[in-house]
Amino acid sequence: MSVKESYAGKINRKLNKKLHVIEVASGREKADLVLKNATYVNVFSNELCHGDIAVAEGLIVGMGEYSGIEEVDVTGKIVLPGFLDAHIHLESSLVNPKEFAKAVLAHGTTTVITDPHEITNVMGTDGIEYMLQATEDLPVDVRFMLPSCVPATPLDESGANLDYRAIDSFYDHPRVQGLAEVMNSYGVIHSDAEVVSKIVASQAHHKKIDGHAPGLVGNDLNAYVAAGVYSDHECSDLDDAIAKLQRGQFIMIREGTAARNLEALVPLLCDKYVERCMFCTDDKHPSDLLEKGHIDYIVKKAISLGAEPITAIKAACHNAARYFLLNNRGAIAPGYLGDFVVIDNFDDFNIELVFKRGELMCDHGVVADFDTPEIDAYLVNRAHNTFHVKELSADDFIDVRPRGVLGMVSGEIITTDAGYSDKIDVAKDILKIAVIERHKNTGHIGLGYIKGYGLKSGAVATSITHDSHNIIVVGTNEADMAAAVNRVVELNGGIVVLKDGVPTAEVPLAVAGIMSDEPLTTVNEKLEYAKAKAYEAGVSKGIDPFMTLSFTALPVIPALRITTRGVFDVNSQQYI
Amino acid sequence: MSVKESYAGKINRKLNKKLHVIEVASGREKADLVLKNATYVNVFSNELCHGDIAVAEGLIVGMGEYSGIEEVDVTGKIVLPGFLDAHIHLESSLVNPKEFAKAVLAHGTTTVITDPHEITNVMGTDGIEYMLQATEDLPVDVRFMLPSCVPATPLDESGANLDYRAIDSFYDHPRVQGLAEVMNSYGVIHSDAEVVSKIVASQAHHKKIDGHAPGLVGNDLNAYVAAGVYSDHECSDLDDAIAKLQRGQFIMIREGTAARNLEALVPLLCDKYVERCMFCTDDKHPSDLLEKGHIDYIVKKAISLGAEPITAIKAACHNAARYFLLNNRGAIAPGYLGDFVVIDNFDDFNIELVFKRGELMCDHGVVADFDTPEIDAYLVNRAHNTFHVKELSADDFIDVRPRGVLGMVSGEIITTDAGYSDKIDVAKDILKIAVIERHKNTGHIGLGYIKGYGLKSGAVATSITHDSHNIIVVGTNEADMAAAVNRVVELNGGIVVLKDGVPTAEVPLAVAGIMSDEPLTTVNEKLEYAKAKAYEAGVSKGIDPFMTLSFTALPVIPALRITTRGVFDVNSQQYI
Repeated sequence: MSVKESYAGKINRKLNKKLHVIEVASGREKADLVLKNATYVNVFSNELCHGDIAVAEGLIVGMGEYSGIEEVDVTGKIVLPGFLDAHIHLESSLVNPKEFAKAVLAHGTTTVITDPHEITNVMGTDGIEYMLQATEDLPVDVRFMLPSCVPATPLDESGANLDYRAIDSFYDHPRVQGLAEVMNSYGVIHSDAEVVSKIVASQAHHKKIDGHAPGLVGNDLNAYVAAGVYSDHECSDLDDAIAKLQRGQFIMIREGTAARNLEALVPLLCDKYVERCMFCTDDKHPSDLLEKGHIDYIVKKAISLGAEPITAIKAACHNAARYFLLNNRGAIAPGYLGDFVVIDNFDDFNIELVFKRGELMCDHGVVADFDTPEIDAYLVNRAHNTFHVKELSADDFIDVRPRGVLGMVSGEIITTDAGYSDKIDVAKDILKIAVIERHKNTGHIGLGYIKGYGLKSGAVATSITHDSHNIIVVGTNEADMAAAVNRVVELNGGIVVLKDGVPTAEVPLAVAGIMSDEPLTTVNEKLEYAKAKAYEAGVSKGIDPFMTLSFTALPVIPALRITTRGVFDVNSQQYI
Repeated sequence: MSVKESYAGKINRKLNKKLHVIEVASGREKADLVLKNATYVNVFSNELCHGDIAVAEGLIVGMGEYSGIEEVDVTGKIVLPGFLDAHIHLESSLVNPKEFAKAVLAHGTTTVITDPHEITNVMGTDGIEYMLQATEDLPVDVRFMLPSCVPATPLDESGANLDYRAIDSFYDHPRVQGLAEVMNSYGVIHSDAEVVSKIVASQAHHKKIDGHAPGLVGNDLNAYVAAGVYSDHECSDLDDAIAKLQRGQFIMIREGTAARNLEALVPLLCDKYVERCMFCTDDKHPSDLLEKGHIDYIVKKAISLGAEPITAIKAACHNAARYFLLNNRGAIAPGYLGDFVVIDNFDDFNIELVFKRGELMCDHGVVADFDTPEIDAYLVNRAHNTFHVKELSADDFIDVRPRGVLGMVSGEIITTDAGYSDKIDVAKDILKIAVIERHKNTGHIGLGYIKGYGLKSGAVATSITHDSHNIIVVGTNEADMAAAVNRVVELNGGIVVLKDGVPTAEVPLAVAGIMSDEPLTTVNEKLEYAKAKAYEAGVSKGIDPFMTLSFTALPVIPALRITTRGVFDVNSQQYI
């Protein structure tokens, strides 16, 4: 029988750890680990300091002269605090959190703040629960912001519809830091009680609230900030960022896969502004994670763009930690977590060693093995059974009425209004596009046309469809469209490139239809192969065959979007 | 019958307030108050900004162009956030919290963090409760750090003995920010479980822990910081401060009545260090509060010593607010409290208007009236009955054995070891000193001698006796000593100057024997009069007749102290 720990028992347990820390710090006992002769970044005095760094109980206990049971000589290297990603949707890596952790550990990241917005749009609060379990005790500390916009818009048909009360109990979880990006800025500044009550509830729990409000200015921005939104990661120009910073918002400088704002915002990395700035990626796709890196890539790029190294490093660790009230990390000082990154020098910025709570987790790119978090069988089963849609046939896609045509724009996710069509015309690059509601077996299929995608044969389908993750398909004929969608359903989610009824490439994404059960490198290989197959089938070079599609169903980006109810004009806010 | 508010009811109440804030911020409704044409300090962008500042529901809702039900034109003035005192013992003002609040409001202070260490040494947890009630809803927001050292040392006979469990329930109070200055640094670095468990418990409640460790260096300092002590206000030289700051402690630059460190620490007020610095007073005596001011005085002095004004102002408000996680104050930005100070300019720094939550509380030195907090009759009665000591006679002070002589040092609170004496010798300035235990009727009276005090006739007694607040008396004869002590007891506490059995001056301090029920100006007049009478009776000019005495019983300051058990040698840690 397990006995619940008493308060006195808990204090006594923590006391004993603390007394050990004190014994080691004062030099009376040996440290568990000492980084000898370290040159380290001091984020408090904004300088490089020198000395041994001693660790006990997973915590830094002191800097100075120490001896340890294990000693690592870091002469000539630079020791930094582990990095924090202030805002990411972990699902965007397409892999499970353990695989994600392995990838970012190698790049020096020891804490990420994730918004499980994608999986929650599929699985509702079970999605939050799944991600909490899938990240428990990972050597990258994964903290959560609760999705604020499920569904993302009233037009979306997602897997759940969450009000403030639905997410409320999660605020008590020790790894929940607050409410994630409040995308519905229009709702906030126009006193929409549903969205504002979510902010109010997060505040009532003394939690943080992140923002998402590109281009908001003046009194509207005042209203959004006054409502209680403490940060923004959508600034793509400096004036926008400074206006928000002046009103007290923290600025998350975003440099990810889909959006890259560092170059525009690098002037913020100076004495005047840096205290209010941190880094985030928002989305990191597999190849980007594997090839470029993570927060280390941002720091390196910031330095190359002229930022002072210590300033950039503060934004990469300390400032995010303070914002999220994670006051035991983001610095090398007594009492802080033993989360370290050892690099060669600021110019090359090669990551040699990464420690998490004093454990060496990555040695020159080789990541140590660690336990896979156990996930409740109910949740595993739930995550692998998220498709509720009947088998489709060509007839489901046949339609005689004229429908709007989404015009693709090379290198962008916006679309143009390319008029109407009532049939596929491959020669003129008029293809059919459809979104199939897949959460609740409603039978809703929205039809339209697309121009500029370039596909010459077969069909391409994906279950990554922001933000509701229905199935989106583009085809040169209805039979292949039906076959591609059926195959996605059969896989419990994924990406399918198909011709004449036969898949030519597949990326299975069986976890909620948005993440894979396979290793990151495997997923990346399959994805790159599928991309190649899609290009081979004619997809235009300026278009990412899958990511661009994933955004065509998000009814907040101009001009035309395809929804489960048909083509929607974002500018006029009407179905056309 | 009062009905407990449901969670849904609470959220709805807060939502309605928030929607009003949004309506005003967006310009759709009039503000309650607008400061028109403001030039204000922006602590985020570190510059002066310009615009109207609008307030609703006591909160700043926006800066820009606004109209209000009430408008105050502040053209040509500078608007600052209200000031915070990061560490004070409010009892040191000798008046009740309402009187204290009136005094500091006039100087632009809108939040203070108090450690009710003095009253708690008298009344135990009832003292904490008394101060919480006496500060409820004051227009100066009074936040608490729970006394960590009651009694201050094992040698003290104070009114209570508090372990971690005794103060634990107070952490749930919404105005308790953590554990107050951990003075027993020796205990911490030597793994004293009793003091360390207090730190552990405060951490378990996710609260702050303040420090007090003058001169601690090296691995001892590491141990103290690693134990979980987040700040220090005892730095009197720059190297000490930088060593602590480098280890992650926040530095409270203290400039109060008894200790003044600003001049030594003003170099911290620069870009490199300021983020980790704030201001505090620790102790402010009546005349000092009335004549010099409070945090405004520190800012003004810092500017005169060369600090950049905006840097000094950040230390006076924003940095303390962030440290204590009071994230709704210390800045002029949407969502922050409408706590403002309007000054003429940075050079003269005259405070013209002070607003608390959007209410004008001080207009050119005239403080608006406000309600006196109601205090539980039990606590009021308890606070006024803290003397438990029988009537004394000259015989109680007669002693034939030789006792140690405390040597007073002009302008200091340290003493020298001035040998032994077995009798009073007024001609040689050898007077008798005694401490009378007064909390528990133990009959303990510690006797000794004192040299350098200068009194030529009668006796001086006070119940302000750091930190246990027993009664201390110095006399030229035993009969007057007994009479002075009896009079202190009769008053339920206070300061008495007496000659030939008749008081020549008195300062009644009937609240726990350390605070008055009278207005600050009255207390100040009585105190100044009593001082004059003491000097008239011969007290040496370099000695503060009462404050110096108050410290002679604190057995942590070298060389000799007088305790309820006799003369104690701090250096050899022995009774002599």
